[in-house]
Amino acid sequence: MAATGRPSLFLDACRRRPTPRPPVWFMRQAGRYMKDYRDLRAKHSILELAKTPELACAVTLQPVRRFGFDAAILFSDILLPLEPMGARLRFAPAPIIDNPVRSARDAARLRPCAPREDLSRVLKAVSLLRRELGQTPLIGFVGAPFTLASYLIEGGPSKDFVRTKAFMNAEPAAWAGLMRRLAKMGADYLTAQVEAGCQAVQIFDSWAGALSPAQYRGKVLPYSRALVAGAQKSGAPIIHFGTGTAGFLRDFASAGSDAVGVDWRVDLAQAFKTCRGQAVQGNLDPAVLAGPLPALKKAAAEILRTGRGRRGFIFNLGHGVLPQTPEANVLAAVELVRSAGRP
Amino acid sequence: MAATGRPSLFLDACRRRPTPRPPVWFMRQAGRYMKDYRDLRAKHSILELAKTPELACAVTLQPVRRFGFDAAILFSDILLPLEPMGARLRFAPAPIIDNPVRSARDAARLRPCAPREDLSRVLKAVSLLRRELGQTPLIGFVGAPFTLASYLIEGGPSKDFVRTKAFMNAEPAAWAGLMRRLAKMGADYLTAQVEAGCQAVQIFDSWAGALSPAQYRGKVLPYSRALVAGAQKSGAPIIHFGTGTAGFLRDFASAGSDAVGVDWRVDLAQAFKTCRGQAVQGNLDPAVLAGPLPALKKAAAEILRTGRGRRGFIFNLGHGVLPQTPEANVLAAVELVRSAGRP
Repeated sequence: MAATGRPSLFLDACRRRPTPRPPVWFMRQAGRYMKDYRDLRAKHSILELAKTPELACAVTLQPVRRFGFDAAILFSDILLPLEPMGARLRFAPAPIIDNPVRSARDAARLRPCAPREDLSRVLKAVSLLRRELGQTPLIGFVGAPFTLASYLIEGGPSKDFVRTKAFMNAEPAAWAGLMRRLAKMGADYLTAQVEAGCQAVQIFDSWAGALSPAQYRGKVLPYSRALVAGAQKSGAPIIHFGTGTAGFLRDFASAGSDAVGVDWRVDLAQAFKTCRGQAVQGNLDPAVLAGPLPALKKAAAEILRTGRGRRGFIFNLGHGVLPQTPEANVLAAVELVRSAGRP
Repeated sequence: MAATGRPSLFLDACRRRPTPRPPVWFMRQAGRYMKDYRDLRAKHSILELAKTPELACAVTLQPVRRFGFDAAILFSDILLPLEPMGARLRFAPAPIIDNPVRSARDAARLRPCAPREDLSRVLKAVSLLRRELGQTPLIGFVGAPFTLASYLIEGGPSKDFVRTKAFMNAEPAAWAGLMRRLAKMGADYLTAQVEAGCQAVQIFDSWAGALSPAQYRGKVLPYSRALVAGAQKSGAPIIHFGTGTAGFLRDFASAGSDAVGVDWRVDLAQAFKTCRGQAVQGNLDPAVLAGPLPALKKAAAEILRTGRGRRGFIFNLGHGVLPQTPEANVLAAVELVRSAGRP
């Protein structure tokens, strides 16, 4: 089992089946920290990479082949489905939406997204990857309703989310409508990705940490729950990831995913307690991954120690790989996790 | 007591004595959201305002006189003590340190700070304010060792704190030395502020939320504890504030302050449980304060409901007032808290 088990380690862990060691993959494992990626980016924009099936496929494969991750995650961007909905998206280099949603009328003007037509190039990349990856599972993904709504309303990254929170409070019906549509889009899109060949999916609520527990519970959780329920029909395991969720992890977990992704601000042992019955994914600090090797090894070993003997543990970072991360550090971390299964 | 109690409401709450209603003050209550402040800023830089006793005094008084806050907080900046230590500080408009600490040698070159000489203009502002404020208590403050060390090392605000965490891990002895010196400076500076006329002090660990529970416990808490212990000799109550502390609030509280300041990401009822025996300050979301009035009133009422009947509750925001906040919203929030004491 230990020798031939690798291809299903990740899926087994998602389903809380026993595994000889935890599987390992990293958010943003394909990205600027890799020379191979920078070489491609010198010739193509992010949107070109994401929308050209052969390029998205090549970028997705780079870290899997180089570092031996136990799962591939499709190279794409959570904002892609917002384009067919009507958002004018560009990267400069941070994502900017030139026609943000600032009123109930703006929100009403958004079009539905039909992933099979509107995102066919992404789905094409998935089917190419399915052939290339062999036994290595492929993870599809979508942005959670809150994180996508924030981008639509703020028009780009934000620090304080003042506009998003004002919209949520001043236009409760429009907010509910927007969140429902984003949840529906998310479920449809994840289902289409699974049908195209993804064996697991992750929901990114990267900005959930801007919220209070009450805001999360009242204005966000119902729609994340609807997204999870909708995507569950695909049969693929669902990982629900958020940063800054320490204050409302029980609510976050109650969205009902198979696995819960936590960041380094959450005590991992506490996360296992809070998310009883669900797999847990996390939670190495990406800044530690980018830093000196001895501290990286110590932190990774501590995470492995906490996860040891638990069903449903997936080794990952607490957020994406930082661009300044040395490739040697990624290799060292992956090696450490892989060696955890050896006698 | 209810009628004449107002002047000591804040200090009583810090000491967990019963109060007829919670006291209210806001972090960054003097600032850009006020027209009076913007008028002064049009003529003077931030550093001029902070270093000219009469101006610092005038700015500090503006919100107290306009909104009737139960405490004044000295207008200053947490980075001021870093200048006499050797940091070349400017605001552009975010704070920038042109000679960041990037090595153990850089750290060793920092000079000790003697607050009575090096920060005499700040202390002069405190004594001016003591006379102007009458019965309204004045809060002095200092940056916590971690937040100050981060500024010194990053050279300005940061998102990922990669340099700070690398320094902390690669140079453990230099990190310990730097943190010890910042804790010593903090205790000396808070003591000098109390001697000059402050009746309470707040320690700002605004960036603590970048840390994992283990990082906080191992690399930060001992020095925050030393700072609290050193400042306690002044006899003034100490508020220890941090954002993003939900994942390690018990450790954060164990630094030993009289009151613990939490942000909106922490469930307030949970904070009272976790910080048993300490006063709790918080935790309205500044984005909600800046937003539509009905939602602001609802959120403030919920906080008041949670705090009702508890000793040692101080109504505040979870972080500073945002520049886009309407003055009318601040007035409404303060009025709501004040009316909580009326029969």
